[in-house]
Amino acid sequence: MNTNKKNEAIFLISTQDRKGILAEVSGFFSKNNFNVIKSQTYSDLIDGQYFMRIRIDLSDMQITCKKFEEDFAELAEKLKLNYTIHYTSNVQKMAIMVSKTSHCLYDLLMHHSEGELDCEIPLIISNHPDLEVVADRFRIPYYCFPVNGANKAEQEAQILDLLKKHHIDLVVMARYMQVLSDNFISNYPNKIINIHHAFLPAFQGGNPYQRAWERGVKMIGATAHYATKDLDEGPIIEQDVERINHENTPEELRAIGKDIERRVLTRAVTEHLEHRIILSGLRTIVFSR
Amino acid sequence: MNTNKKNEAIFLISTQDRKGILAEVSGFFSKNNFNVIKSQTYSDLIDGQYFMRIRIDLSDMQITCKKFEEDFAELAEKLKLNYTIHYTSNVQKMAIMVSKTSHCLYDLLMHHSEGELDCEIPLIISNHPDLEVVADRFRIPYYCFPVNGANKAEQEAQILDLLKKHHIDLVVMARYMQVLSDNFISNYPNKIINIHHAFLPAFQGGNPYQRAWERGVKMIGATAHYATKDLDEGPIIEQDVERINHENTPEELRAIGKDIERRVLTRAVTEHLEHRIILSGLRTIVFSR
Amino acid sequence: MNTNKKNEAIFLISTQDRKGILAEVSGFFSKNNFNVIKSQTYSDLIDGQYFMRIRIDLSDMQITCKKFEEDFAELAEKLKLNYTIHYTSNVQKMAIMVSKTSHCLYDLLMHHSEGELDCEIPLIISNHPDLEVVADRFRIPYYCFPVNGANKAEQEAQILDLLKKHHIDLVVMARYMQVLSDNFISNYPNKIINIHHAFLPAFQGGNPYQRAWERGVKMIGATAHYATKDLDEGPIIEQDVERINHENTPEELRAIGKDIERRVLTRAVTEHLEHRIILSGLRTIVFSR
Amino acid sequence: MNTNKKNEAIFLISTQDRKGILAEVSGFFSKNNFNVIKSQTYSDLIDGQYFMRIRIDLSDMQITCKKFEEDFAELAEKLKLNYTIHYTSNVQKMAIMVSKTSHCLYDLLMHHSEGELDCEIPLIISNHPDLEVVADRFRIPYYCFPVNGANKAEQEAQILDLLKKHHIDLVVMARYMQVLSDNFISNYPNKIINIHHAFLPAFQGGNPYQRAWERGVKMIGATAHYATKDLDEGPIIEQDVERINHENTPEELRAIGKDIERRVLTRAVTEHLEHRIILSGLRTIVFSR
Repeated sequence: MNTNKKNEAIFLISTQDRKGILAEVSGFFSKNNFNVIKSQTYSDLIDGQYFMRIRIDLSDMQITCKKFEEDFAELAEKLKLNYTIHYTSNVQKMAIMVSKTSHCLYDLLMHHSEGELDCEIPLIISNHPDLEVVADRFRIPYYCFPVNGANKAEQEAQILDLLKKHHIDLVVMARYMQVLSDNFISNYPNKIINIHHAFLPAFQGGNPYQRAWERGVKMIGATAHYATKDLDEGPIIEQDVERINHENTPEELRAIGKDIERRVLTRAVTEHLEHRIILSGLRTIVFSR
Repeated sequence: MNTNKKNEAIFLISTQDRKGILAEVSGFFSKNNFNVIKSQTYSDLIDGQYFMRIRIDLSDMQITCKKFEEDFAELAEKLKLNYTIHYTSNVQKMAIMVSKTSHCLYDLLMHHSEGELDCEIPLIISNHPDLEVVADRFRIPYYCFPVNGANKAEQEAQILDLLKKHHIDLVVMARYMQVLSDNFISNYPNKIINIHHAFLPAFQGGNPYQRAWERGVKMIGATAHYATKDLDEGPIIEQDVERINHENTPEELRAIGKDIERRVLTRAVTEHLEHRIILSGLRTIVFSR
Repeated sequence: MNTNKKNEAIFLISTQDRKGILAEVSGFFSKNNFNVIKSQTYSDLIDGQYFMRIRIDLSDMQITCKKFEEDFAELAEKLKLNYTIHYTSNVQKMAIMVSKTSHCLYDLLMHHSEGELDCEIPLIISNHPDLEVVADRFRIPYYCFPVNGANKAEQEAQILDLLKKHHIDLVVMARYMQVLSDNFISNYPNKIINIHHAFLPAFQGGNPYQRAWERGVKMIGATAHYATKDLDEGPIIEQDVERINHENTPEELRAIGKDIERRVLTRAVTEHLEHRIILSGLRTIVFSR
Repeated sequence: MNTNKKNEAIFLISTQDRKGILAEVSGFFSKNNFNVIKSQTYSDLIDGQYFMRIRIDLSDMQITCKKFEEDFAELAEKLKLNYTIHYTSNVQKMAIMVSKTSHCLYDLLMHHSEGELDCEIPLIISNHPDLEVVADRFRIPYYCFPVNGANKAEQEAQILDLLKKHHIDLVVMARYMQVLSDNFISNYPNKIINIHHAFLPAFQGGNPYQRAWERGVKMIGATAHYATKDLDEGPIIEQDVERINHENTPEELRAIGKDIERRVLTRAVTEHLEHRIILSGLRTIVFSR
């Protein structure tokens, strides 16, 4: 879905909800003669917050981005807007972290190969050497940092160095089986996406498919969420489920689950890369494409 | 979902897409100090059309509706807007037409009984006497107009009289097994909703479940659409499907299909009653709740 | 789905899995010249258990049911089968327990009215008078037993008397908001079906829609299960979910959830009434129709 | 799902339905002391046909396969069974045919790489050179046979030679955009699987996403079927759909559809490779895993 391949700026805005806010913001773009391609709003009446996502076509811009950002900053100060601006011409850089399980990695690389993920993937990081062969197939550098009880902080520091050096915008934990430290996570707030192989908040923690089988549930699922210091407690981005039946063994649940994990993680990554997500506390606002 | 029980006006607007249209329209509401509860927009880049649905809280209005409508009419003329205004305080009146099959009728009456359909149901019309017992249970008048080859035009005329007399806003064909004449339909343009027991455009026409079985499809569905003079060709409002397997007989498909028909028709009726649908040629824009 | 309206016997069998078990059991029916309409088996390789559901057409039977049961009992003793036999000519009797919420009650009564639930409903029991009007519409006796801190045991005793007197086979808690005592439940082991308004094991306990909203999940669900003394911990029969988004308020989740609860409970009740469920510890084997 | 990696024989049997057939067939396996892992049956009461799938564990076999096949052939003649026997130790060989679109190819190769498709892929065949790079990544030989008006028969003959030489068991048309001749198809009856990018029988023929957009459907789908001489008319194996809305452009439908096509084709191929499909005229019996 290369809908972002054009030269656009995307504004993600949140502010306190109040009368006239839409008119003021859309008036700004209109007065300045910007070409609004799409404007999406959400008014959270419970928390009294207002959220906007605005896509601007920059192809006929008469002023510089700098000028344009200054003007908007002035408006934002007046209206007390929190906001970020994203230019589709700035290709994002995504790092993938894996352990020994390849299915999510393959799915990301496959979608990337077909132009469905609008980013570069400068590197894949693992705590095991096993998946180097997959990285090789797609010609992406593979770095291995084995972790044991003693060296975890040190290895994380090295990984952080590598991420910084490559100007990484988004880290995707595609079944990376190490818990990241609070320090690591604080370097990429709301920029680390994790896939949990269960329908959260059911079956937090380890071995969810075995536990799902034992409980006798009739559907299994997967959850993609931003990583926070509380494991499996971060803001949920995407979830999906599939119907199972009594015949399915725990091993078969794992196999069925692989396809759910693949599509849930890939969708969440797509939504992040397309700048369609705004956080509101523990909840995510995910605008449609 | 009695979200409309409050005192609101809902604007459904369509116009040619162009720069600044959102700013002008939202500016109008802002300048006049109206309280916009929700504003939804859709820009159809292919056909160059722009669609808006705006919900206004009228509870603190300082001016009359008449004044308010005049002001908006002026704006609309300037901006060349097509629009309708709907007041939630005007309870809509819905007629249900049935033949011998009761499942969709029951589902509508059940949802209505629980306050989930924001309308009155002054009458049920049928070409058979069979379902009077259902109407009686819910204490709704039941009118029977048997149709044969000779009397169809005459019976339709009587039905139309009855609908007009009761100020009917919406006619729901809940498995009414007669084809309505063009003349009848032209009296209620985009105000007659029909349920077809197949996933259109597959299996148009009669006996879709038998044909689905014979073709060996793996899912069956249902479609709610506005009635137009071309049978089963009207604008689609809602569709849903369910997975089936080789064990299901045509009779079982019919039984599974009943639940699909129920929920598809009830959803479509809900969307219409909540003023969430705008037509764009053969396509429906259905705004989320 | 009146597929059971014919004169059939349904055998539900469980035993230790071993070679030749299918041949022995199906040999019995073949030797005795019974007409097997459908034979379903499931071999649980993990627990080493074997399960069968066999439907026999009794319409051409040459021997009495008594003789037939004696013969099968002999086989069962030899093969160490646990089993139950169900005759479709014995119409089951189902009691519905409700509090103030009517949506599940309506859905059951609606499906029952259309011949989709093969049972009689001799009575509806509630701890509140509110839903008598619904019972009246369907002409079913309504008994009200208000429960307070002091009279719970006494009221349960009265309810049990009533259930026994009416030879009730199945009790359905269609949003009955009282916790039943262990004693009550032990009178109807695996014969009480409850609907929980969440996708168990997520959001056990009270107020699940509010908690789902706060956690920011992207799908909500419902679970029908047999009631056991541990609340919300009984064997799961049916689950379903629906996708939601950030715009949905807790109130809207409740409204969306109503339709999920309806269909999940009605499906579970149908499966029970059609003798398609065998228990295996905490897990249910639910054979397809 | 490598549940077939063990040493098993799978029997796919169809015959006229009649009393005692299950007892006779299961009696055979029992008498001969075979270890039946799973036995699945389906009785088609409409067409009077009976279908069985039986998995036998061969690991403790005391007799040769030859003897075993002779014994079964005798039974089959007596009972008039149509049957095939499949040994999981015989790894199947699958050829993939593609044109310029890579998404289904990638999905098959990814699942194959992870051991989820129990087959070898000795070659990929295309009428265009474009996807050689994908084949290279997975180290699979790529053959290109450009087709024009004049050389089609000749090229097909060469492809057939190649398939025969490699002992191909299954041909998968993973968006191969040429219509195969009747002669070609007759060489692989029910051994060619095609993916159609619509929910058949809706939108047969070309450009289904554009047509779906124009018709304003609310869900789009894909269909995997066996190729027969009537294009898009072969027996359906798998179908799936996804909900869309008015905002989705035809281009976006194409993107959404890619994921549906991927999973539908991969599931159909898996079902075929696991010997879970029996044909009954135009309908497929697809046994659960």
